[in-house]
Amino acid sequence: MPAKTGMQYCERINAQTVPCWYKGELLNGKRSEHIAFSGLMKTQRFMYDMQSDPQLAERLTYASPSDGKPVGMSFLPPTSSDDLRKRREAMTLWTQVHHGFLGRSPDYMNTAIMAFYTAADLLNELSPQYAENLRNYYAYCRDHDITLSHAFIQPHASKISGQLDATEDAIAAKIVERTEEGLVINGAFMMATQAATSDEIFVYPSPSPAPFDDENPFAFSFAVPNDLPGITLVCRDTYAASSDYNYPLSSKYEEMDNIVIFDHVLVPHERIFFAGDEQMSSALFSASNFHIHAGHQVLCRYIAKTEFVLGTIQLLTDTLDLKSEAHVVEKTARALAGLESLKALAIAAEAGAVPDGRGYVLPAPKPLMAANLLYPRLYPELIEILQLLSSSGMIMVPQEEDFQSGAAESLNIYLRGTDLNSPERNALFRLIWELGAGSFGGRQTQFERFFFGNTITVSNRLYTASAQDQSQRERVRQFLARSAK
Amino acid sequence: MPAKTGMQYCERINAQTVPCWYKGELLNGKRSEHIAFSGLMKTQRFMYDMQSDPQLAERLTYASPSDGKPVGMSFLPPTSSDDLRKRREAMTLWTQVHHGFLGRSPDYMNTAIMAFYTAADLLNELSPQYAENLRNYYAYCRDHDITLSHAFIQPHASKISGQLDATEDAIAAKIVERTEEGLVINGAFMMATQAATSDEIFVYPSPSPAPFDDENPFAFSFAVPNDLPGITLVCRDTYAASSDYNYPLSSKYEEMDNIVIFDHVLVPHERIFFAGDEQMSSALFSASNFHIHAGHQVLCRYIAKTEFVLGTIQLLTDTLDLKSEAHVVEKTARALAGLESLKALAIAAEAGAVPDGRGYVLPAPKPLMAANLLYPRLYPELIEILQLLSSSGMIMVPQEEDFQSGAAESLNIYLRGTDLNSPERNALFRLIWELGAGSFGGRQTQFERFFFGNTITVSNRLYTASAQDQSQRERVRQFLARSAK
Amino acid sequence: MPAKTGMQYCERINAQTVPCWYKGELLNGKRSEHIAFSGLMKTQRFMYDMQSDPQLAERLTYASPSDGKPVGMSFLPPTSSDDLRKRREAMTLWTQVHHGFLGRSPDYMNTAIMAFYTAADLLNELSPQYAENLRNYYAYCRDHDITLSHAFIQPHASKISGQLDATEDAIAAKIVERTEEGLVINGAFMMATQAATSDEIFVYPSPSPAPFDDENPFAFSFAVPNDLPGITLVCRDTYAASSDYNYPLSSKYEEMDNIVIFDHVLVPHERIFFAGDEQMSSALFSASNFHIHAGHQVLCRYIAKTEFVLGTIQLLTDTLDLKSEAHVVEKTARALAGLESLKALAIAAEAGAVPDGRGYVLPAPKPLMAANLLYPRLYPELIEILQLLSSSGMIMVPQEEDFQSGAAESLNIYLRGTDLNSPERNALFRLIWELGAGSFGGRQTQFERFFFGNTITVSNRLYTASAQDQSQRERVRQFLARSAK
Amino acid sequence: MPAKTGMQYCERINAQTVPCWYKGELLNGKRSEHIAFSGLMKTQRFMYDMQSDPQLAERLTYASPSDGKPVGMSFLPPTSSDDLRKRREAMTLWTQVHHGFLGRSPDYMNTAIMAFYTAADLLNELSPQYAENLRNYYAYCRDHDITLSHAFIQPHASKISGQLDATEDAIAAKIVERTEEGLVINGAFMMATQAATSDEIFVYPSPSPAPFDDENPFAFSFAVPNDLPGITLVCRDTYAASSDYNYPLSSKYEEMDNIVIFDHVLVPHERIFFAGDEQMSSALFSASNFHIHAGHQVLCRYIAKTEFVLGTIQLLTDTLDLKSEAHVVEKTARALAGLESLKALAIAAEAGAVPDGRGYVLPAPKPLMAANLLYPRLYPELIEILQLLSSSGMIMVPQEEDFQSGAAESLNIYLRGTDLNSPERNALFRLIWELGAGSFGGRQTQFERFFFGNTITVSNRLYTASAQDQSQRERVRQFLARSAK
Repeated sequence: MPAKTGMQYCERINAQTVPCWYKGELLNGKRSEHIAFSGLMKTQRFMYDMQSDPQLAERLTYASPSDGKPVGMSFLPPTSSDDLRKRREAMTLWTQVHHGFLGRSPDYMNTAIMAFYTAADLLNELSPQYAENLRNYYAYCRDHDITLSHAFIQPHASKISGQLDATEDAIAAKIVERTEEGLVINGAFMMATQAATSDEIFVYPSPSPAPFDDENPFAFSFAVPNDLPGITLVCRDTYAASSDYNYPLSSKYEEMDNIVIFDHVLVPHERIFFAGDEQMSSALFSASNFHIHAGHQVLCRYIAKTEFVLGTIQLLTDTLDLKSEAHVVEKTARALAGLESLKALAIAAEAGAVPDGRGYVLPAPKPLMAANLLYPRLYPELIEILQLLSSSGMIMVPQEEDFQSGAAESLNIYLRGTDLNSPERNALFRLIWELGAGSFGGRQTQFERFFFGNTITVSNRLYTASAQDQSQRERVRQFLARSAK
Repeated sequence: MPAKTGMQYCERINAQTVPCWYKGELLNGKRSEHIAFSGLMKTQRFMYDMQSDPQLAERLTYASPSDGKPVGMSFLPPTSSDDLRKRREAMTLWTQVHHGFLGRSPDYMNTAIMAFYTAADLLNELSPQYAENLRNYYAYCRDHDITLSHAFIQPHASKISGQLDATEDAIAAKIVERTEEGLVINGAFMMATQAATSDEIFVYPSPSPAPFDDENPFAFSFAVPNDLPGITLVCRDTYAASSDYNYPLSSKYEEMDNIVIFDHVLVPHERIFFAGDEQMSSALFSASNFHIHAGHQVLCRYIAKTEFVLGTIQLLTDTLDLKSEAHVVEKTARALAGLESLKALAIAAEAGAVPDGRGYVLPAPKPLMAANLLYPRLYPELIEILQLLSSSGMIMVPQEEDFQSGAAESLNIYLRGTDLNSPERNALFRLIWELGAGSFGGRQTQFERFFFGNTITVSNRLYTASAQDQSQRERVRQFLARSAK
Repeated sequence: MPAKTGMQYCERINAQTVPCWYKGELLNGKRSEHIAFSGLMKTQRFMYDMQSDPQLAERLTYASPSDGKPVGMSFLPPTSSDDLRKRREAMTLWTQVHHGFLGRSPDYMNTAIMAFYTAADLLNELSPQYAENLRNYYAYCRDHDITLSHAFIQPHASKISGQLDATEDAIAAKIVERTEEGLVINGAFMMATQAATSDEIFVYPSPSPAPFDDENPFAFSFAVPNDLPGITLVCRDTYAASSDYNYPLSSKYEEMDNIVIFDHVLVPHERIFFAGDEQMSSALFSASNFHIHAGHQVLCRYIAKTEFVLGTIQLLTDTLDLKSEAHVVEKTARALAGLESLKALAIAAEAGAVPDGRGYVLPAPKPLMAANLLYPRLYPELIEILQLLSSSGMIMVPQEEDFQSGAAESLNIYLRGTDLNSPERNALFRLIWELGAGSFGGRQTQFERFFFGNTITVSNRLYTASAQDQSQRERVRQFLARSAK
Repeated sequence: MPAKTGMQYCERINAQTVPCWYKGELLNGKRSEHIAFSGLMKTQRFMYDMQSDPQLAERLTYASPSDGKPVGMSFLPPTSSDDLRKRREAMTLWTQVHHGFLGRSPDYMNTAIMAFYTAADLLNELSPQYAENLRNYYAYCRDHDITLSHAFIQPHASKISGQLDATEDAIAAKIVERTEEGLVINGAFMMATQAATSDEIFVYPSPSPAPFDDENPFAFSFAVPNDLPGITLVCRDTYAASSDYNYPLSSKYEEMDNIVIFDHVLVPHERIFFAGDEQMSSALFSASNFHIHAGHQVLCRYIAKTEFVLGTIQLLTDTLDLKSEAHVVEKTARALAGLESLKALAIAAEAGAVPDGRGYVLPAPKPLMAANLLYPRLYPELIEILQLLSSSGMIMVPQEEDFQSGAAESLNIYLRGTDLNSPERNALFRLIWELGAGSFGGRQTQFERFFFGNTITVSNRLYTASAQDQSQRERVRQFLARSAK
């Protein structure tokens, strides 16, 4: 089956049987009809449908090497600059639907599994079977347009237990048994975004240091369908509501986060990518260039999101007639400069593409890492600009229903803007409220702050990538040598 | 009637008949049983009950000059340093209930009306009746323990119409008729916080410049019961929910904001404090020392809120076992230094109290203005510290019901903290989520940023208060004169 | 005469007769031997010599259209992307000598006069003679490799007098007489950097609004040799010292700033580019795309300077053995991300080059404007990183002579670094002191903050360039329209 | 001998014989006549003379307990709140001379030695002789008005050697021999400010961890006259110049920093405060409350310095006529709020004074620690305000001599300010240049950033002082407990 349609996407999710707890109750019924998922699924349904839109199919798909049928462009392992451009254009087309608010837009995990695929040969060191498992799984995802989530954050409690207990008591996810059918996994992962609206889950924990010489039961990676026996999901409370007008963002883009519990789940051998080898865990991760390939997708998302927030700032400025105020010029210019920087980093990443040594092409890593360092500061700054410009207007925002009530006449008089009537102006402020003060926006800000790790982690990535580069030091060394003469 | 009880407070609010729109529907039934108000009213009920608690009454009340019965301490016009101390101690007792999250804790408006009372003599210039009206109204509020809201922000649309229309078309609130019974007022005000849970509303708009020589129909101040004919309230959506565990803050402290619409409301003459005189509007406001007296209450609130957020940061640090990390030390120390500064400014404000020239005593203005300038930066910084320390843990927070479900066993294993069991740790993170990413917290941050106006307004207050002070300039002038010799 | 040699450069400057006051004395003797100019002139002498270096000439020069002789590449009016690349490469070659510390590296003003040349046709509106004057002057500069300075900042006092006086008393620079030989100019300009080490001075003041309908005597532009009668220069105190070791930067790169006084200077007609027309003043400036063409040179300079400071940070980190500390990783990564952004903006500026409508090619304006907005924040931040990492070590730095004294033995023991001997380590700290605490560095920081104007001015340039662009607004408008359905 | 006069101060310094290297030469001649010291000594001479000024003596001195003669107030060990007030007033009187620019104003080290004296009893644990040595030394300093410097920063190289070498090769300062006359010390200290203009030097290094069980040769404290055999000083380059007009700050306040080398210096036993005991080193330091007592002096200095910079900002604003600009209001208000905070912290420190458990009184520690945390951010921010407001005007500043030259007439026209003539305005800008861009100001900024250690060190002090305080946590714990019900 090639690139799927929106309907196929929904049907698959609705057919799932994985137990999923929401506010103390097990979900039943179709997920596409539950308030916590319906808006998002409608959005992604639209995105999947674009793949078969005759106007867009060529830009969103390419021919699968297995059967020539169209598959999602974000599965394409790039082997040329032109491939990078194609990937970017496809990912950018989808951002015109989600405006960067979907951290787990399907192209993100498509790109992730593609990245690991490019490094599959490395697994031959441990076993040719592992390498084949990974290649097969990638082809399966690509050819069946599998919607993936991923799980990698261990509970904080695992650190506590890790300090105290023997392996068998440790609560970090681990292999508890090896059978003929596969490996039995026990443990839990925090923050698998969209787990409840995906087909399968890709698991790749940071292994705990093994307390003895034996095989490390904490070092493994695999992928499984969501509804394998023993898997359970727990939801946080949803931020979604049904009214498009009142909650323009969360009604469309609210991605549920889940705790994923593996209670003695049997993972079949063909779905294991490696097991027991701590060094391979970091070697494969590093060789996959995950942060670079995914970083390319992320930068497309950053740009779209920045454009959206910038447009919101501009509309706010227009309707409050603040255009000529110096502080507004200064704030807007900062947003514009941020956007120009992101766009320039995207251009530089493609202009500086490099071979990965395995036959594929990588976008230049350092511009992408720089973007990952800048955005966790830029996005909160953009939101702060909205907050500073909208003042109390961001808070006192009536609802859609009020404009159809007996209060409507007054609201129509008192809430109009410079260039907008009252319901239009109020719609803009509903959006601003969701971005700048509502729960949906609160998660977005937190999400961007920590997307690829905390500041130190992200800093370390760029720092390490530059650590061996002596060119700047050499500039100064030669300067000092000249001065010493 | 003296300082009221919690039950009296509730009964009065519940007896109101003012039309109040919520999500397109007119509220009916008791407000104390509606989700948007019940939590707040329960909190304030508790606060009012404290006034008759034998342990606390002496600190929370004083004898009314009219009949010797106990009335709320925050009505006390201070005539000595000791009065300032008593006021602070009473206001601080209430902060132990609301922890600074109630921007309209009743002592705020009690203080406001007291402030205007201290300047009532000024109104003799226009009419002895006005002065008596204000004095009477203050005594009425004090002796009946009236819960007040206030209305002063004009709709943005009034600026648009103000630029274009003649007075009669202008939509800014104005006097449209003068009758024997009183003045007829038409217009609307944004953001009257707690209007729907107060007895009366105090109105004091910034007057629009009058377009002709006549009496300025935009310059007036008055106070009326909420349910005078012609008054209508419109609510924003509530952020409150019923679960104390899931929503520890909004379930207790969510203060509804309202648009207050005056549709040809007849305000009786005895409730008018002045009308038609634009100069009096600013003269009375200035003479009342509103920002100083209220600033004293606000600083008590800042301190309580800072202590609460600091305590939250400390508990988070403890349960994540981050105590020894340098960045945590640095962040916590910034919060501690902020708290020390606020406490020091409170001490300095009382230590430097000055006579107001009318027989009352003012806390030193500049330390209070400095606090008003610092807190709009400090509070968001405190929240940012919470966000940076809690990372994704702030988002993936299950609900109370999940701990009583089939998922409880797993959650109890995987969500425990260093020193807390899972439900306790999760309760802490629910709080952190409400502060750092939820809608309630979003409003709090925006509220603190703009409490006494935007940065320029608040800066200007301190700048103006210091503009004539040549002492620092003189230090430098003498220095330069010495250097020039 | 084509691109000049270093010796020719020095000879011309040394031959000047313009009165130049330094600390109350008129300079006499060769400027190249005076402490305030010798280091800089040696540096620029080296740069000019590079133009005839057989290894570099091809990259630093091109054939003059007038006689085919090699002229400086920075004079080249770009007509293709390839020209932009050539210009960048030439300008970058010179940065390998000055590392971005010369704000008035000769290519800056070469580029400026080229920019005005590209808009010369506009002057036909006023007079074909003006257009020809400008074209001729550009060709003269190019073919004689004229070292230019420019004057455009009016004294603050001119604003004071401008508010009070009639035109004839105003002290802003103005035309005081029109004779057959030319125009007589009176007035002064602040901050003509390198005026005392240039051949000619290009004058283009922002005109004061004319107080009457007549020709505006404040609106004009011209260029003259420095030593025309009536011109006087006044210097600030020099920051230069002779020791390369003790003052590694100022001994090479100290650019003197001058006040330029025009005391009834007769400017020949052929050197006048326009006069009396206030509209032309801004029209020509705008049409020249001065900030874009010059912005391209400036960005090359930013990149070089950032690399230099980054290298200094890295060497400091190495010698203090701080490499593994989290705060060092974080600070260095910020510097790296800043560098990546600047390099990306340079790539984007060339990749997005656009025709200027007059047959020339412009680098994309917005990336350059973004760089001009980012650098006034980035550079002080880089310097702050140096300050924070070097602590008191930046201050307690002995001098070259101490290492040849009786104290040398002790210093050699106590001042060595992890990977450097004492004199080497001390040389690095002398550099850090000059950058982070010395007068030379103090001016550099101030200079970068205000290079193309203050924050508002620079913000306004980017804001205005984007004001008509509805694309971001349209993204949000369509989103809201969908939500309203 | 009691509190000394200025002349006595100078005579003692001039009589010293300690070898002092400056730019490779040994100083000879009177220090008070050398450009690197003369301005500072003149300033301190004036300060010492104030002690015998009949108008001031009562506030600057108290009766010595040994002979009743007047001794410097900053030597007074406070035993009451009133003593704290007296100390503050005396220290503040001196700030009217040095405006906070002297980090080593003599009252700083007077306070330091007083602080250690208050903890002298602790030394009885090791030896009653040590305790007596310290008490005697304090009395000697007090009664002879000894001008002290102090040495405690080890060379960075000592860390390198410490990692590699045996004790005998380590270059950290250590006891190399114990003789009947005393202990022989070898090593060096960085950054002894004013060592060359003090009588004696107080040494108290952070001990290196001893590599074996024996007595720790790195743990000791003592005080010696500067010119004991074996002591050598090395200077950095001076920032001072002779012209009061051109260099208004450095001509008066430039404090030289020195490397102090101990080459086998024999320290007499009666000058040893402890030796060999690593635990005593930190116990005595902690018990002395050094950072609290000294912090009180430092806060007086912060306030004076802030007032001076604020006055400079105000004069600049006046003469540039920027008073009504919003960004100026905002920047000035930040400076004002900073000043109010510092003054409030000083009030709070005295209002909250506590007994130290040994019969003395301590200012409240936390407000002082908060000030130490705030000022390293506030001072650079104040300087940045000056930089942002003065723009290029800070750089292009002619010199005194230019106003007496042939250029004077023009300068008098073109450099005048709104309310100042040209030489006056220029004098103000000379000051601004020294503060914001000159070497003297560069050192001041760096000095304030690191006065009591880097951010982490200073943060840690406040963090630790609050670590055991459960009051804020308890507030939140009770809140959560209520929410959980």
